[in-house]
Amino acid sequence: MKQVLFQHGTLALLVPGLLTGTLTIKELLQHGDTGIGTGEGLDGELVILQGQVYQVQSTGHIRQVPGDFTVPFANIHHADYHPLAQLSDLTQAQLYQQLNDRIKAPNTFYSVKITGTFAKMHTRAASKSTPPYATLLATAQNQQEFTAENVSGTLLSYYSPKLFHGAAVAGYHSHFLAEDLTIGGHVLDFALTSGQVQVQVFDTLEQHLPIENQEFMQHDFTKDNINSDISQSE
Amino acid sequence: MKQVLFQHGTLALLVPGLLTGTLTIKELLQHGDTGIGTGEGLDGELVILQGQVYQVQSTGHIRQVPGDFTVPFANIHHADYHPLAQLSDLTQAQLYQQLNDRIKAPNTFYSVKITGTFAKMHTRAASKSTPPYATLLATAQNQQEFTAENVSGTLLSYYSPKLFHGAAVAGYHSHFLAEDLTIGGHVLDFALTSGQVQVQVFDTLEQHLPIENQEFMQHDFTKDNINSDISQSE
Repeated sequence: MKQVLFQHGTLALLVPGLLTGTLTIKELLQHGDTGIGTGEGLDGELVILQGQVYQVQSTGHIRQVPGDFTVPFANIHHADYHPLAQLSDLTQAQLYQQLNDRIKAPNTFYSVKITGTFAKMHTRAASKSTPPYATLLATAQNQQEFTAENVSGTLLSYYSPKLFHGAAVAGYHSHFLAEDLTIGGHVLDFALTSGQVQVQVFDTLEQHLPIENQEFMQHDFTKDNINSDISQSE
Repeated sequence: MKQVLFQHGTLALLVPGLLTGTLTIKELLQHGDTGIGTGEGLDGELVILQGQVYQVQSTGHIRQVPGDFTVPFANIHHADYHPLAQLSDLTQAQLYQQLNDRIKAPNTFYSVKITGTFAKMHTRAASKSTPPYATLLATAQNQQEFTAENVSGTLLSYYSPKLFHGAAVAGYHSHFLAEDLTIGGHVLDFALTSGQVQVQVFDTLEQHLPIENQEFMQHDFTKDNINSDISQSE
């Protein structure tokens, strides 16, 4: 069976501040039930689980968004995970190393879903800006950070090969949602107490671009520091 | 309507010589009727028009290939072109500049199809190698080149944004097929006498990767000079 990761927009377009929402959640959900993303103007961090779209706002508040909410960037896929392992007592770096060693698929896209308890969870949520939009680096400086200890929830991660850095973030790009919705967002750091780790390897990246958006279509990306700014911000 | 460019494999995987055919022509044709590619071991240059797959072999001979012929890399799409212009008396550089100026879509993928007469056509066809495969640069040194004057035919070109250099060739990647099948291949240079130029802009790149191929999955691409070798070879 074809395993497809759908991506709307690229991380590169966020770098110069092309933050207009160019796809609705209703349209996005036609491509899957599990995913991550951000709202127009970098309006928080999205975590999509079982077709429910949760937005972690920069206030820390977590809500479900309506179908007409729009996104400049998102990843989504139809969940079809396979169990990988039950893992315990690992830092973020140790966990990502374990995933590399066990999954052994550095040259393709895959998703990892971990449901469990985290001794530490450190996240951020971007703060919505309005036009004219600032760059990703400038907007990232307005992000709010959150921490929690001994929190249960779901860590949803996408791995992208180095060849696609710029379109996506090379390596792991993870969002988190607490079971009790007390904390969530783009993951900066964590320590796993114990969790069930599942993996889904994709053979296809369906890269969708906002070609109706003239700002995107006419932007001169050659002047942006795409690779370094993404590495610094994400 | 969604406009999809399907790509099997990446140009990056050709660089270290991952030349195994990982998709059949029969499978490829499920994704379109118009395209370009190469055979296993860099076995010539493919031009796909109206669902017919022509192979320009390194001998210069042009034939149609069977459905079980396999490819390590190919682009294909369902033709849905729109007329752009009737253009005359242009060098390759002048034509590509005209396309840039008229299409104005540097940040997405598109295809250009030109049917007409060419005052000059200079092509190459890669020569099939066998395992263990050499690198793209080494194999490219075994290519055969062909020239013709005042030849009628179809120039099929794909434009890729710079962000995707490595997955594809940034800029224009063109193959040619003469109407009388006397010359074809990967285009090195040409001069257009007069041609009908059509364009099809894509909003989606469907990037398919050969995840069943263990050589590809386990290859360490960090040691390859992906960007410079592609620019030199293509």
